[in-house]
Amino acid sequence: MQTRIGALALGRLLGDGWRGSGPTYAALAARVRSLVLDGRLPLDVRVPSERQLAEQLQVSRTTVTAAFDSLREQGFLRSRQGSGSWTAVPGGVRPTGGAIAPPTPDDVAHDVIDLAAATLPADGVAVRAAYEAALLELPRHLPGVGYEAAGLPAARRAVADDLTRRGLPTGPEQVLVTSGAVSAWSLLLRVLAGPGDRVLVEQPTYPNALEAARRSGARLLPVPLGGCGEPLWDVDAWRATLRQGTPRLGYVIPDCQNPTGGVMDDDTRRAVVAAAEAVGTVLVSDESLADLRAGGTAPRPLATFSDSVVTVGGLSKSAWAGLRLGWVRATHDLVDRLVEARLSWDLGTPLLEQLALAHLLDDPARERHVAGRRALVASRREAFEAALRRHLPHWRYRRPQGGLSLWVELRDGSSTAMAERAAAHGLRLAAGPRFGVDGALERYLRLPFVVPVERVDEAVRRLAALAADTPRARPSRLVV
Amino acid sequence: MQTRIGALALGRLLGDGWRGSGPTYAALAARVRSLVLDGRLPLDVRVPSERQLAEQLQVSRTTVTAAFDSLREQGFLRSRQGSGSWTAVPGGVRPTGGAIAPPTPDDVAHDVIDLAAATLPADGVAVRAAYEAALLELPRHLPGVGYEAAGLPAARRAVADDLTRRGLPTGPEQVLVTSGAVSAWSLLLRVLAGPGDRVLVEQPTYPNALEAARRSGARLLPVPLGGCGEPLWDVDAWRATLRQGTPRLGYVIPDCQNPTGGVMDDDTRRAVVAAAEAVGTVLVSDESLADLRAGGTAPRPLATFSDSVVTVGGLSKSAWAGLRLGWVRATHDLVDRLVEARLSWDLGTPLLEQLALAHLLDDPARERHVAGRRALVASRREAFEAALRRHLPHWRYRRPQGGLSLWVELRDGSSTAMAERAAAHGLRLAAGPRFGVDGALERYLRLPFVVPVERVDEAVRRLAALAADTPRARPSRLVV
Repeated sequence: MQTRIGALALGRLLGDGWRGSGPTYAALAARVRSLVLDGRLPLDVRVPSERQLAEQLQVSRTTVTAAFDSLREQGFLRSRQGSGSWTAVPGGVRPTGGAIAPPTPDDVAHDVIDLAAATLPADGVAVRAAYEAALLELPRHLPGVGYEAAGLPAARRAVADDLTRRGLPTGPEQVLVTSGAVSAWSLLLRVLAGPGDRVLVEQPTYPNALEAARRSGARLLPVPLGGCGEPLWDVDAWRATLRQGTPRLGYVIPDCQNPTGGVMDDDTRRAVVAAAEAVGTVLVSDESLADLRAGGTAPRPLATFSDSVVTVGGLSKSAWAGLRLGWVRATHDLVDRLVEARLSWDLGTPLLEQLALAHLLDDPARERHVAGRRALVASRREAFEAALRRHLPHWRYRRPQGGLSLWVELRDGSSTAMAERAAAHGLRLAAGPRFGVDGALERYLRLPFVVPVERVDEAVRRLAALAADTPRARPSRLVV
Repeated sequence: MQTRIGALALGRLLGDGWRGSGPTYAALAARVRSLVLDGRLPLDVRVPSERQLAEQLQVSRTTVTAAFDSLREQGFLRSRQGSGSWTAVPGGVRPTGGAIAPPTPDDVAHDVIDLAAATLPADGVAVRAAYEAALLELPRHLPGVGYEAAGLPAARRAVADDLTRRGLPTGPEQVLVTSGAVSAWSLLLRVLAGPGDRVLVEQPTYPNALEAARRSGARLLPVPLGGCGEPLWDVDAWRATLRQGTPRLGYVIPDCQNPTGGVMDDDTRRAVVAAAEAVGTVLVSDESLADLRAGGTAPRPLATFSDSVVTVGGLSKSAWAGLRLGWVRATHDLVDRLVEARLSWDLGTPLLEQLALAHLLDDPARERHVAGRRALVASRREAFEAALRRHLPHWRYRRPQGGLSLWVELRDGSSTAMAERAAAHGLRLAAGPRFGVDGALERYLRLPFVVPVERVDEAVRRLAALAADTPRARPSRLVV
């Protein structure tokens, strides 16, 4: 998939700060290189001609030519006689990310502190109460078949009511109960995107969702999110990518974006949905982190802007990942297609789990439970940020508006090198490139801040030791 | 995918009984047509030349030419100048089967008797006891992450022990806990077969497994099973299909084959495994019905013949489908690959379900529970067969050695027509073509015999009325 970036857009992306003290061509090349490495300028994007860019930047054409020559030499541009230049990485090899696994019993036994997965302990009181209530209802269901691909009527109704309370009026027939949010997304890929179809993703985004799309045979079309101090969602970039790529599907996390923790504002929501609708792209809005906003009022659910938006949610973050409960909210028609596909996928979600789902969502104390969850997350975040200030005061990150992680900007491209050495320092880390499409994002690291408070200081101390012990990664590490 | 059938093999398949009282060419054409419709002679199989077949059958070449002309006219053969003839169906359209859904609450409300899905009520005592024990253990797990893609150590160990007790020595590291047997098969397809890869299936076989393979983009390669009075598994046909098609994967149900109820004997197991190994085909043995043998000693699990055989199992039939519990038993290496794939699939099976799984398999009373299950199934089968003798005494079927269904041979190709009219008679039926690859099997109907005893007479009475009300389906119905 090749897209273009115009001179105006590239000029904006380069910003004003790229001119340094050295030669202009070298500064320009360095800035382009770092945009590619950060995933801000995706791979295989056709850049403007030297003449156009020179005009836009008000530099001499010779300067741009020298910059492009240098980028080509380093492997960050590829050109074909007469047909322009495209962004690339040295060696042309594209390391894929791979999904993030939970820590194993082995990790726990060896006192490894997990900074890879973003997980929380169960909301034990709520989960136990839900299972106990479910078990009382079980006998009524034992004489039956036990599975229903769309979900138990009571569970579908509970999800519909919950979405309606959130401001998204929903009927039970619009709900499919799934075994978690990842399962919901994988099933949607199965039904809506065939091999070779283009699927738009935010960059960075949730690695397991990326991997699901890769394994379905989709071609990933990244839309870079903004860096520190910039808006995360650049509506113009979304419009351009949608128009040029006309992807079949798009995967977006508008609430507590993973890994950045950003929340999309209402105007951006409206604009992004309109841009997707204009080219027939079905947006899938993963709202499984929506309960973990750090504050402020809840924005309007993305699907309130258009019936074509599909909503995915789940209880892994707000209740417990051990539950494996999620849902899809879509048109009745799409739900029917998902049900059909599910009969050869997993046949349905376990009945007792679904009874527990209804209890968790219907629980009159639910708001209180979720508030408790938010408070737990807030205390862990504060402790984590304090420890960062103590041990790694120079690390920068975007202040999250919610979620479970910090998206940290490293000064050099050492993310993979750090992850590789983490075990020796008693840590488990997921490097930045896991969150992107083409092995970019080497200058970023996701840090889940949900380490138990009593372990935080030790965790960040180990992180600082690891950082001190990691040599500045050279670009060539990227493509080993 | 095109395969060939030699003159000798086609002669064997035609058998001795095809010559009737009319013209020989017409009898030969009629027999070939019925083999195609029954799925015994799959589609896109290249048939021998007229000369070769005439020699084999000891008839004149003119007879074979006239038979082939007639078949071509009816649409059951396609030929290309100079390159032979292939089996086909009229119109060339291939109706696909689609998975079988469980009955809906609507069906129950409208007093529809379900003869489509083969389901049983829960083994209520065992299931409740397992969940109660699981709930007592839950608090220990609530502080943890809650999911582990390979499965809880206790659940993996319980499955390994159970397989070992069945005569298949297994370590916990060879086990992946899945959300049912269908989910296990779908995950194996995801890891082992890419789009376009060939996957061998028995014909007839379990529709939801067929559909899983279709949706993964696989090309299905059917091996027809024998009809009434013949061995189900014809080792020569397996060898030929494996050698010609060199499929990546094969899906086989050696224990209580669904829908026929057959059990593969040890010699056939050995031969089929050797034939698959010789061409590098990974056989996946679905043993989720193994507990429901009607009698006799348990044959050796297929995987005892070779490490390359992958075993799939589950508790949907022997305990309850509402549990959604299954497993894969494979090499440690393949289990690792499945775990990796699962992180972007469903992340894992719910923790409480897995605790229940361990209890169900470890239960000292398990043998007693399973024996009770078998007795329930036997009583329902006897009642069903008695009702068939009363109301539909002319219907033939292979006596099942286990499982939950009869594979009934209709006198004409009216299976789809019957299924279409079933609702008007208060029944839900799955037509024969659902169990095959190319819309064949119109002369067959699967009848799950697990209707509650008090409903059996009514169910079969409705079936007889439906059969009387269904006109003999013409071949063209096949391809509507």
